Amino acid sequence: MAAARDLQARLTKPAGSLGALEELSVRLSGLAGTCPPPRPTPATVAVFAGDHGVHAQGVTPWPQEVTAQMVANFVAGGAVVNAFARQVGADVMVVDVGVGVPLHGGATLLDANIRRGTRDLSVGPALTRDEALAAVEVGIGVARALVASGAKCLITGDMGIANTTPAAALTAVFTATDPALATGRGTGIDDAMLEHKVDVVRRALALHRPDPADPLGVLATVGGLEHAALTGFILGAAALRIPVVVDGVIAGSAALAAAAFAPDAVAAMVAGHRSAEPGASVALAHLGLEPLLDLGMRLGEGSGAALALPVVEAAVRVLHEVATFDSAGVSEK
Amino acid sequence: MAAARDLQARLTKPAGSLGALEELSVRLSGLAGTCPPPRPTPATVAVFAGDHGVHAQGVTPWPQEVTAQMVANFVAGGAVVNAFARQVGADVMVVDVGVGVPLHGGATLLDANIRRGTRDLSVGPALTRDEALAAVEVGIGVARALVASGAKCLITGDMGIANTTPAAALTAVFTATDPALATGRGTGIDDAMLEHKVDVVRRALALHRPDPADPLGVLATVGGLEHAALTGFILGAAALRIPVVVDGVIAGSAALAAAAFAPDAVAAMVAGHRSAEPGASVALAHLGLEPLLDLGMRLGEGSGAALALPVVEAAVRVLHEVATFDSAGVSEK
Repeated sequence: MAAARDLQARLTKPAGSLGALEELSVRLSGLAGTCPPPRPTPATVAVFAGDHGVHAQGVTPWPQEVTAQMVANFVAGGAVVNAFARQVGADVMVVDVGVGVPLHGGATLLDANIRRGTRDLSVGPALTRDEALAAVEVGIGVARALVASGAKCLITGDMGIANTTPAAALTAVFTATDPALATGRGTGIDDAMLEHKVDVVRRALALHRPDPADPLGVLATVGGLEHAALTGFILGAAALRIPVVVDGVIAGSAALAAAAFAPDAVAAMVAGHRSAEPGASVALAHLGLEPLLDLGMRLGEGSGAALALPVVEAAVRVLHEVATFDSAGVSEK
Repeated sequence: MAAARDLQARLTKPAGSLGALEELSVRLSGLAGTCPPPRPTPATVAVFAGDHGVHAQGVTPWPQEVTAQMVANFVAGGAVVNAFARQVGADVMVVDVGVGVPLHGGATLLDANIRRGTRDLSVGPALTRDEALAAVEVGIGVARALVASGAKCLITGDMGIANTTPAAALTAVFTATDPALATGRGTGIDDAMLEHKVDVVRRALALHRPDPADPLGVLATVGGLEHAALTGFILGAAALRIPVVVDGVIAGSAALAAAAFAPDAVAAMVAGHRSAEPGASVALAHLGLEPLLDLGMRLGEGSGAALALPVVEAAVRVLHEVATFDSAGVSEK
């Protein structure tokens, strides 16, 4: 990291004039243990998909079948995350870790289904500890496989109708925040449904009293299968010292779980954007991460993180490509 | 624009979930008069370079010779804007509109020098009206030539040691803002030099009393050759209904001048980023533009605007590529 700071100071630009890009380049040099760090390409967005028993509580106006329909849309290349990934040169891989119905996909759909949706976390544990652990291991395995096949940057994606409810519960537990501040409108719910959603989260936390020092227990009682898999995905990237671009409120809650398992994992996290979901900002503040983009997006799928990849790449490129004052014959002040 | 709003509502994502990208896609549809609007590629960054007589007042610690040295660095491809442009697939063209010494460049350097640096705006007009007009016409001509050769998006770039001083003066005049609020640290000056720089701007405005209703007079008295050329560049893009991504504080001051000439020109402007220079935010607020990126950058060269190109492209791609609920067989809420 000292080498990266020193190099930044010698490049043909005023010191500090690249703002957040300079700090990011230093962090990525530290993560890789080299300066300049490797370019973050090729990159892959892994979209972990799952369904949620808490859907029965009426926390979203969208029917549960949309999860499977959107997985088909991802596989067909028709979703926003596909368009953004194509643009930035990233691959998209879809991982069924907990969709409610059997899926028939192509080469880009990995069947790692652990169960066909979680149980309703407002009346009992969403998952057994074994199920949660299995999902974490799916995520670690996906990270390992992608890096083994050449990925230099991983990007978190998610799909699961009702999945902002477990994300709110996870975020409230790991950051000790009131559920009213960690719960948002997700796909766009009205005031009455938001109040109900907060109440569902509050009752779940009262029922389970999850212990933030036991992240597996938290994921099992109030999490989701894609949340647990994303936790493993982030841990896998961190263990391999590969940057992982964190998307929005689902990924943020998984990042909190990952940090609860292994605080050092934060070093591998790059906050892609500031989701409009309030829980995302609660998570990023707790992790001490500043997002690269702030465009009022709240789609999920990994869309915001995919769109941040060019910024990550730019931060690294500067160290690879920009001339120094010496090499360019430019006078210093 | 209505067609773009209607299409956004039918795409497979919750309404409004792409935040600022949706509004941008609607604006670009309106600018082009088609939905979806053309993709903003290929794009070119035009870096207008000039020197400044006000350098003699000690408003920057950098020697004036750095302007010409950095032009050589741009031509050689070694500057930050070159690295970012390569990454996002944009070309870089350098236009000498007022550098203090003769330059010898290659195919990417256009010699359109009007005079070898401005006069000192703190003791007299920086330019004659004819010189300012000639610079505006250079900018219009560059925009026309680039669009004629296929550019679908123009990106503003600038280089000129001391050029944040005229930018502050222009911004103060066009927005009726106190110079203390429109003047920043540029490449990174200390408190004493900043106080002096504000005083230089204040004295210049008291000397010339420029009339914001006479934008050519403002550019001539307190502007710079690259500021005037950028004004024309923006006007040229707007006249051709081509989006122009506005970089930082220099481009922002030129955008104010362009809007003073032709208020409708704002429709073609896309604010690439929020520069750390305070004058840039003053200009954007006056123009009613929200920046796409906010990374604490303050380099100039067009670097922030170039880095915003992928966001502009993403906003357009969504309208071209994302499936509708109908076409993808996804249920609506």
